[in-house]
Amino acid sequence: MNVFIVAAHPEPKSFNVAMRDQAADFFRAAGHEVAVSDLYAMNFNPVASAADFGERRDPDYLVYALEQRHGVETGTIAPDIARELEKLLWCDVLFLNFPVFWFSTPAILKGWIDRVLVSGRTYGGMRFYENGGLAGKQALVSISLGGRPHMFGEKAIHGRLDDMLRHLLRGTLHYVGFEVMPPFVAWHVPYISDEERGAILRDHRDWLARAHSLEPLRFPRMDEFDERLYPKG
Amino acid sequence: MNVFIVAAHPEPKSFNVAMRDQAADFFRAAGHEVAVSDLYAMNFNPVASAADFGERRDPDYLVYALEQRHGVETGTIAPDIARELEKLLWCDVLFLNFPVFWFSTPAILKGWIDRVLVSGRTYGGMRFYENGGLAGKQALVSISLGGRPHMFGEKAIHGRLDDMLRHLLRGTLHYVGFEVMPPFVAWHVPYISDEERGAILRDHRDWLARAHSLEPLRFPRMDEFDERLYPKG
Repeated sequence: MNVFIVAAHPEPKSFNVAMRDQAADFFRAAGHEVAVSDLYAMNFNPVASAADFGERRDPDYLVYALEQRHGVETGTIAPDIARELEKLLWCDVLFLNFPVFWFSTPAILKGWIDRVLVSGRTYGGMRFYENGGLAGKQALVSISLGGRPHMFGEKAIHGRLDDMLRHLLRGTLHYVGFEVMPPFVAWHVPYISDEERGAILRDHRDWLARAHSLEPLRFPRMDEFDERLYPKG
Repeated sequence: MNVFIVAAHPEPKSFNVAMRDQAADFFRAAGHEVAVSDLYAMNFNPVASAADFGERRDPDYLVYALEQRHGVETGTIAPDIARELEKLLWCDVLFLNFPVFWFSTPAILKGWIDRVLVSGRTYGGMRFYENGGLAGKQALVSISLGGRPHMFGEKAIHGRLDDMLRHLLRGTLHYVGFEVMPPFVAWHVPYISDEERGAILRDHRDWLARAHSLEPLRFPRMDEFDERLYPKG
């Protein structure tokens, strides 16, 4: 299997980065090929803009998704995007590793999503959800946050974490076709002891070993909707 | 009233930017003070990092939120963050204007959120939701997207748009205390005629006139939870 780890933490000595390194070691030891994009170390540019396109379909008016399509077709998209897209198309498993900032990804990772999930290749027209351009691949999400488990859930103060992350799990990863597995969550990380962090790393190791065989998250399926995307029946 | 417009679109001639300019004109004509942060024009840096802090509380290990607190207290936070924070604290109404990218904000705006909503001033400890640091202010959200209304809703292919945007509306804007009004949504923008776009701008103008008096979005309240954030009763 080819595993592509995309990670985003501003502190190289952080616990979140230890989770990332543990994942890379685990997959390599299991005989898989592993590529890592450490977005902070790469100084990755997260800003989707006209500068991403060497040759413009329409030089006077930027429709970002249309220029993505054109840039990939003509091989004129920015080299940093092309490199990331190559790894994305190569992988069987995309492994996202990040600290939750505002119930979402850090901006540097949001920009990776904005720029690398190019229209035409990863989605387009009626090619989304189970028909998305990356269907057949699996997405694993490994995150850390400051909150505690009882703050999340149906009746909890923040509601279900999956609902807070819906834009990412369903609206992004599943949108482009990934089978999305239940995320691993390291809770309350800034406030716990080294022993407790050690216990989380052991849980993370166990999760890595079984994540691929968990029940994927369930979402509405395209085939429940007609060709105009109205519900069938 | 003081109105702070924060906008993020990579194409200055876009319809989304026309909505932003209409909003600025509307509020000025109504006698309000208006500040505009056009993040693309400012070349705003969206990457939260150690470089945001002139004087570190802990130079060896970055906990971003703790350094935010320290940076604001000591006046050593990056000048671009300090300028945005000043406008944020000054405003009565925050007006976010952006095209929806992956059911969320463009990365440049996510980075504004990551960097400017500083711990200690906008939230911290038990100061969130109706007790958030920006309580008493109102947030207006004006967005454009490619989808059509029937793709969103309880039984629709993408579910409710508010649920896709929960991380922003509830997990970010309401988290720091804003009263969040129902967003204005310009649907299907890349695919419609100039006449249809003109009709949307008229709707937007009407919405601007009544947005402040709409029923705000409802979320769980802190006072329904005890001091450890377990549900009461």
